[in-house]
Amino acid sequence: MKTMNVGIIGYQFMGKAHSNAWLQAPRFFNMNIKPVLKVACGRRKEPLQSFADNWGWEEVETDWRKVVERDDIDIIDIAVPQHLHYEIALAAAKAGKHIFLEKPMAMTLEQAREMAAAAEDSGVTHYLNHNYRRCPAVRLAKKLIDEGKIGDIYHWRGAYLQDWITDPQFPLTWHLQKDKAGSGPHGDLNSHSVDLARYLVGEIAQVTAMTTQFISERPLPDADAATFKGGTSGAGMGKVTVEDASFMTVMFKNGALGSFEASRFATGRKNYNFFEIYGSRGSLIFNLERMNELEFFSKDDPEYAQGFRTILATESVHDYIANWWPPGHIIGYEHEFVHAMVDFMDAINRGTGIAPDFYDGVKEMEVLQAALDSASTGKVVVL
Amino acid sequence: MKTMNVGIIGYQFMGKAHSNAWLQAPRFFNMNIKPVLKVACGRRKEPLQSFADNWGWEEVETDWRKVVERDDIDIIDIAVPQHLHYEIALAAAKAGKHIFLEKPMAMTLEQAREMAAAAEDSGVTHYLNHNYRRCPAVRLAKKLIDEGKIGDIYHWRGAYLQDWITDPQFPLTWHLQKDKAGSGPHGDLNSHSVDLARYLVGEIAQVTAMTTQFISERPLPDADAATFKGGTSGAGMGKVTVEDASFMTVMFKNGALGSFEASRFATGRKNYNFFEIYGSRGSLIFNLERMNELEFFSKDDPEYAQGFRTILATESVHDYIANWWPPGHIIGYEHEFVHAMVDFMDAINRGTGIAPDFYDGVKEMEVLQAALDSASTGKVVVL
Amino acid sequence: MKTMNVGIIGYQFMGKAHSNAWLQAPRFFNMNIKPVLKVACGRRKEPLQSFADNWGWEEVETDWRKVVERDDIDIIDIAVPQHLHYEIALAAAKAGKHIFLEKPMAMTLEQAREMAAAAEDSGVTHYLNHNYRRCPAVRLAKKLIDEGKIGDIYHWRGAYLQDWITDPQFPLTWHLQKDKAGSGPHGDLNSHSVDLARYLVGEIAQVTAMTTQFISERPLPDADAATFKGGTSGAGMGKVTVEDASFMTVMFKNGALGSFEASRFATGRKNYNFFEIYGSRGSLIFNLERMNELEFFSKDDPEYAQGFRTILATESVHDYIANWWPPGHIIGYEHEFVHAMVDFMDAINRGTGIAPDFYDGVKEMEVLQAALDSASTGKVVVL
Amino acid sequence: MKTMNVGIIGYQFMGKAHSNAWLQAPRFFNMNIKPVLKVACGRRKEPLQSFADNWGWEEVETDWRKVVERDDIDIIDIAVPQHLHYEIALAAAKAGKHIFLEKPMAMTLEQAREMAAAAEDSGVTHYLNHNYRRCPAVRLAKKLIDEGKIGDIYHWRGAYLQDWITDPQFPLTWHLQKDKAGSGPHGDLNSHSVDLARYLVGEIAQVTAMTTQFISERPLPDADAATFKGGTSGAGMGKVTVEDASFMTVMFKNGALGSFEASRFATGRKNYNFFEIYGSRGSLIFNLERMNELEFFSKDDPEYAQGFRTILATESVHDYIANWWPPGHIIGYEHEFVHAMVDFMDAINRGTGIAPDFYDGVKEMEVLQAALDSASTGKVVVL
Repeated sequence: MKTMNVGIIGYQFMGKAHSNAWLQAPRFFNMNIKPVLKVACGRRKEPLQSFADNWGWEEVETDWRKVVERDDIDIIDIAVPQHLHYEIALAAAKAGKHIFLEKPMAMTLEQAREMAAAAEDSGVTHYLNHNYRRCPAVRLAKKLIDEGKIGDIYHWRGAYLQDWITDPQFPLTWHLQKDKAGSGPHGDLNSHSVDLARYLVGEIAQVTAMTTQFISERPLPDADAATFKGGTSGAGMGKVTVEDASFMTVMFKNGALGSFEASRFATGRKNYNFFEIYGSRGSLIFNLERMNELEFFSKDDPEYAQGFRTILATESVHDYIANWWPPGHIIGYEHEFVHAMVDFMDAINRGTGIAPDFYDGVKEMEVLQAALDSASTGKVVVL
Repeated sequence: MKTMNVGIIGYQFMGKAHSNAWLQAPRFFNMNIKPVLKVACGRRKEPLQSFADNWGWEEVETDWRKVVERDDIDIIDIAVPQHLHYEIALAAAKAGKHIFLEKPMAMTLEQAREMAAAAEDSGVTHYLNHNYRRCPAVRLAKKLIDEGKIGDIYHWRGAYLQDWITDPQFPLTWHLQKDKAGSGPHGDLNSHSVDLARYLVGEIAQVTAMTTQFISERPLPDADAATFKGGTSGAGMGKVTVEDASFMTVMFKNGALGSFEASRFATGRKNYNFFEIYGSRGSLIFNLERMNELEFFSKDDPEYAQGFRTILATESVHDYIANWWPPGHIIGYEHEFVHAMVDFMDAINRGTGIAPDFYDGVKEMEVLQAALDSASTGKVVVL
Repeated sequence: MKTMNVGIIGYQFMGKAHSNAWLQAPRFFNMNIKPVLKVACGRRKEPLQSFADNWGWEEVETDWRKVVERDDIDIIDIAVPQHLHYEIALAAAKAGKHIFLEKPMAMTLEQAREMAAAAEDSGVTHYLNHNYRRCPAVRLAKKLIDEGKIGDIYHWRGAYLQDWITDPQFPLTWHLQKDKAGSGPHGDLNSHSVDLARYLVGEIAQVTAMTTQFISERPLPDADAATFKGGTSGAGMGKVTVEDASFMTVMFKNGALGSFEASRFATGRKNYNFFEIYGSRGSLIFNLERMNELEFFSKDDPEYAQGFRTILATESVHDYIANWWPPGHIIGYEHEFVHAMVDFMDAINRGTGIAPDFYDGVKEMEVLQAALDSASTGKVVVL
Repeated sequence: MKTMNVGIIGYQFMGKAHSNAWLQAPRFFNMNIKPVLKVACGRRKEPLQSFADNWGWEEVETDWRKVVERDDIDIIDIAVPQHLHYEIALAAAKAGKHIFLEKPMAMTLEQAREMAAAAEDSGVTHYLNHNYRRCPAVRLAKKLIDEGKIGDIYHWRGAYLQDWITDPQFPLTWHLQKDKAGSGPHGDLNSHSVDLARYLVGEIAQVTAMTTQFISERPLPDADAATFKGGTSGAGMGKVTVEDASFMTVMFKNGALGSFEASRFATGRKNYNFFEIYGSRGSLIFNLERMNELEFFSKDDPEYAQGFRTILATESVHDYIANWWPPGHIIGYEHEFVHAMVDFMDAINRGTGIAPDFYDGVKEMEVLQAALDSASTGKVVVL
């Protein structure tokens, strides 16, 4: 069995999700190349070692440059916050490593373009992890669209709604600081929706947007606290420097009219990554909180028996599912990461590309940047 | 029992809905003034007579001016297409008649302003029939908001989606002609959503919008055909002169960020008048296709037991319901018109205003006009 | 226009529902015979007169025998509690009147058989009002079954659940007294479910049942209080003499295995008349609280796109709907009574029968009686 | 870190589910004893070795007695079909091994009683794997009941519905042979529902049941084919010797009236393990196909705002969830097995029992056996 050595940079939430996926992928799927969990990298030695022990990373390293430079490392898995993506990805590309990059891609469109050029030049397999593309129900949506079952697409709605910072006492974690996160839900959540829209509908031609902020100051965070439920440091308040919500209206190149909503202030929505697609022959609805389901309306049904059907995408005919459990035995959030690892390794093995890649990241960031421009100028932006 | 004579102008879809409501209101509700179905007015004698016979209108008249001028008529019910609203409403106000006006209010903002001024000057009771305000579940939404159960409102989404013209062979009915309808779903559907948004969230401060058209030519209609499933005349094609869909992003005066979507091309949506409201203490969801239900999320629930609850608003404690049937026995579309007649007559009796009135119509049209301006200029419009 | 005179016996909940339906039927539907609301009958003069005035019954009468004996009455509408059905129906049949009988049919199977024989002998049109057969979504279920879309039926589940007497202070209304009501939810609710099961699945061959009572004593009721939210008289407590819940398991003649649940102690269920049907080609789900919808699963769909689709049965192709409103404009509880009146008058006009009739009532009562026998003996009853 | 050596018997569907859980448990949860995947046992060497390699079992063995007799094995995980449970469990108990036993417990009530006595005598920790008790949403149901939020329980409905054998060409796998499986969905599915009913409602006092068979002969299976989508051997037909569906009505000791439905012929239901509980203060609904959700109705809510709320049981306050992902990131089927391993090891560590254990298995089989007796005699069985 051919193997490849993986070096992961980052050991928080995404480090956990990626590690689990590297482990699970070869257990549930037949893979031509088996990943070896070689080295885990992070700045703080103690938690890093504990992370490595737990997930079976053979070694630890606190300097990511050393990981990138190691000859025995084939794959760099970038699982750190976005302000670090640019530098690491460039170095990894230069070093000829295949790159598994967690989204969002970068802090700026310029960074993204440079990263894409570098990766393309180096000839490595580069992947931007919009994991939701690999949810079986989303793949089914794509299949139905490709088969023409939806017809010409008239409308897209992508809403990615959460509510984890509605409490004014929620601390000022890095997600709420522009220099770390680049932006708020616009980059974090709309980026997923834009990726899904490009995957399912096509390129976006025009954008308008409005963003807003509901809470401008928050308690400073406790550096050691957990990512999403962090305690406060007691050291006072700091300014929130990203938006709390971002709404867009867009025109697609194919004429579809669409909307996007990203917010962390949608009380009751936990990880509501939702889309609706309306077309001339049918329509689709997806909600990540019920990620095993896809709703499908078809005008091909007899007129008296048309309706949105809830497809439980857990049949063996649905992508990836045959490798998991029998019908009706649902899968969860982390399974999408497993699918990503499987497809990424397969792309490396076959020497092909994999979508979404850094090029897709650039296209996505063009839309996101255009939206921010529109929000600040009050004008439509034509892409 | 005090009575008042009603003259209705229009005998199509809305003529039917209004006539039924005039009849049902006093049967199910205690009313201090009982409406008398005095005269029905329309241009074509034969179908008008048949309409009057069916619903029990005592007389018929083909000239609406004569109806408005009759001394024995107390109330003018305007149930014709919107291009006729201005002239009739002005005349009715001048003649001192109470006015029950079907929405949308007028063809232009200027008309609306003039109508509102005339009605206000005349001292009559004037009502613009956004019937959905009188759906018990919508009233419950208002009550929860007024009680503070939703807290500060962060987000509004209003989507009014239908699919009745996705077939390119659907004829060019008056709804698709700008000189008759003023606009497409923007005026027809967004108007309802804007009214609900103003009722539930507040005034709108800024608007951006995009509109589009999917089908530019359609078969000419058969003049005698039914309104929504009309046959074609066989006389060739004509230009569609209204938009097919209109999306807006708005900022409310209270800081809430909102979106609107109106389309007649949302395959699978029949009369999907949908809203979502997210606030600091709770959230609400409504869908007219399930109009007896309201979804309510409350952060006041214990943390482990929070969720969107589906309230079946058919208890006797819900507005209007005690007059209908026992709990769980749902009401339908036309009941909202009955409620409107009851409240309108009550306002006349008590000499008070009733919302929404012509002033509300003006405010609503300011938003709709701003949106059309934004769609054509590509710029945000500040109201 | 041919007319027929109706005499109604009963002026409470069902008197209201029937009166409304007699009025609405000719307004929304083309009828060859138009009903005339001739005389309303009840024991207490004052509320009766008020009822008659409200609904337009021309005359009142306190002795039902006089109504039945009048030559000018063509139709007897029996809308009183079930302990009075037998005597009135027999007299009406004997007098040659067409009979519109509210369910449940009678107090005993013997009564039902006698009533059916009398009605059959007299040659009148006799109808037992299981109104839910005339819900468009239920008619669609029947159509799909008749077309073979469900295939061989394997399973039926009928649950009719309410919660209006969970409060121990709810008074001992007539519904809870065996001499007035015959039985509790078994006769009131299971009767509806058995009718639907016979309509959709077929005859029942074997029954087992268990019944139970949760609250054995309740405050005596205030005689003047409204039916379902009645006050108490303050005169002490009385014994509940009917069951509070009744569950059945049945085998149908065609081999389907089924279950029934009827309860007034299902907290949160208001008028939850629910059925599920599973067959070899497809399945169906219906819930009266969402009575405009039918869920349909079809194995004829491609394997990757199968799911329960929610059909909004408000298209003009659905039974009765073309006479009401456009698609997506839902109808309510009372509309089913209107449909019943329309079909009943049509049956009279054409001289045909109408289902369910008194014969159906007998078959239904055979099942209900068998269940009570099983509950008391602990043995399966073979029909 | 203390460790314990596990020997697993069986390498098919349940072998896979258990192996994954043994691996995942220590990665996501803090465990005082860490399981070591020591030896995997099965009769066919080749697929067994492949299974062991995939999941990291250190050794393989084809004779289960040798595994049970090994001194270095602490835990026997029994993951073979039920006809083998009795013999292995007895031997394991005798050898003083802790036992993790997959359900259903045994072929007969007598076997179950003997197994329970042996396990109790030996002093080992014994666990019967009704994994659904460890679904966070089910645990939440238990919590709400224990807190009194549901009040006195009036009704239980447990339906476990699947459709994987509706195709008459589905082969005669071991599940359909009485000598291998004991019974059909009654033992396979009702057993789960009875376990949940005992967990949530209490002991059952009386049972009636009906069972039936829809397809009596099926093609003989291909021995090498996968468990649930197996090919046929081409060697002709064989008799189905188990029931295809089993329905029960029960009375609980606390007076609740309940129903059970188990079928493999419920077209459209894939793994629909559903329950409803109605009580004097509230109600609960669960559906395994949406296993991250629990519906909860509370009469403690204000009367105008009562409704079934859908709790997404993915908050950190919900059992087990803090160890997985942030809110709204759902978990899947296999996670329940992980929870079982965690709790089982914890019970061993603390020297306490764990529910459900073999005693629970006996109580459950008493109900199942009583139901089969009732189905054959046509009489209620009092437990």
